[in-house]
Amino acid sequence: MNMDKFPSRLLENAVNEFAKLPGIGKKTALRLVLHLLRQEKEEVEQFGMSLIRLRNEVLHCQVCHNISDSATCQICANPARNSSVICVVENIRDVMSVENTHQFNGLYHVLGGIISPMDGVAPSDLEIDSLLKRVETGGIEEVILALPTTMEGDTTNFFIYRKLKEKKVAVTTLARGVSVGEELEYTDEITLGRSIVNRVEFERTMGR
Amino acid sequence: MNMDKFPSRLLENAVNEFAKLPGIGKKTALRLVLHLLRQEKEEVEQFGMSLIRLRNEVLHCQVCHNISDSATCQICANPARNSSVICVVENIRDVMSVENTHQFNGLYHVLGGIISPMDGVAPSDLEIDSLLKRVETGGIEEVILALPTTMEGDTTNFFIYRKLKEKKVAVTTLARGVSVGEELEYTDEITLGRSIVNRVEFERTMGR
Repeated sequence: MNMDKFPSRLLENAVNEFAKLPGIGKKTALRLVLHLLRQEKEEVEQFGMSLIRLRNEVLHCQVCHNISDSATCQICANPARNSSVICVVENIRDVMSVENTHQFNGLYHVLGGIISPMDGVAPSDLEIDSLLKRVETGGIEEVILALPTTMEGDTTNFFIYRKLKEKKVAVTTLARGVSVGEELEYTDEITLGRSIVNRVEFERTMGR
Repeated sequence: MNMDKFPSRLLENAVNEFAKLPGIGKKTALRLVLHLLRQEKEEVEQFGMSLIRLRNEVLHCQVCHNISDSATCQICANPARNSSVICVVENIRDVMSVENTHQFNGLYHVLGGIISPMDGVAPSDLEIDSLLKRVETGGIEEVILALPTTMEGDTTNFFIYRKLKEKKVAVTTLARGVSVGEELEYTDEITLGRSIVNRVEFERTMGR
């Protein structure tokens, strides 16, 4: 559908704004906006204001740089968490993913991206210096690198590893292997190969 | 991803609001909200306010009930349009679709839905009375029923047709047939059958 015939400038503006979002085309934008038009005024006000308030009021934790409603996030402020282990992740979503496993009780460090010369992201654009400072301050025994297994992720892993090498801290990374429940014939060769090289004692896997 | 571990209430609110939209799940909502978090404050403000302003300020044309920025819409207010023909459509989107064909120079009447007992939509919920009043006021020579070819659409067509029968006005409906560029073997039987029954003089199709 050609979209040059909007019956209202207000409608056109709203559709154009929606269509700026990633993965939302003009047709979908129109569908969503017409849906909002059918909702109560209060509902739409609540929707719009929730986005504006989020952008204007949300903070970043001064320790781990995760987003937060306070200067220090709930995780960093929680005395029950093990503050000697830091899990380094690319972004907020990865914190949520790891939290949802309920397998990690340490703290996080959100880099805010990964090194990518193609996209113009240099180490100085990321929260790497603040990570090194956290380690230098002491009390950290292990840094887990949980970045994606892409060329950019590997580059960033290696960059951080080199910086941490001199410091007295264990540097680990996520185990890569066959997914739980996955069949071997559908596992890609690199993953399967690595899972053989890094095989673990059978006893360690019992009861999990 | 289980989504119970939001690092911020503001984030959680924004994601929940987004996920109320049709076709937007929690994961997509989170992706869109994190995208907005990376935009400038002014951009997000503009997005949110465009939705709130649309809902609060947009009007419905008092003649055809299309949405409009003024009491009478651009189409109804345009003296170059043929005010003796009214095209009856289900919703605003259908007005835009017909306008985009550039083949219709008359006016519209937006019903705001179609009769659907299953969804609790009765004739009195739709702009049918106002259509009859427009016709009674005079000056209307033809009413084109351009509703969807569903049971609900047919019901609504028939309901309006019965009401208009007594009035001195031609009632027409859209031609149904094989799509332009479509191959016969892929056309459904009902459409193909109707296109044979309603076949037209070859000369009438020349030069189109």
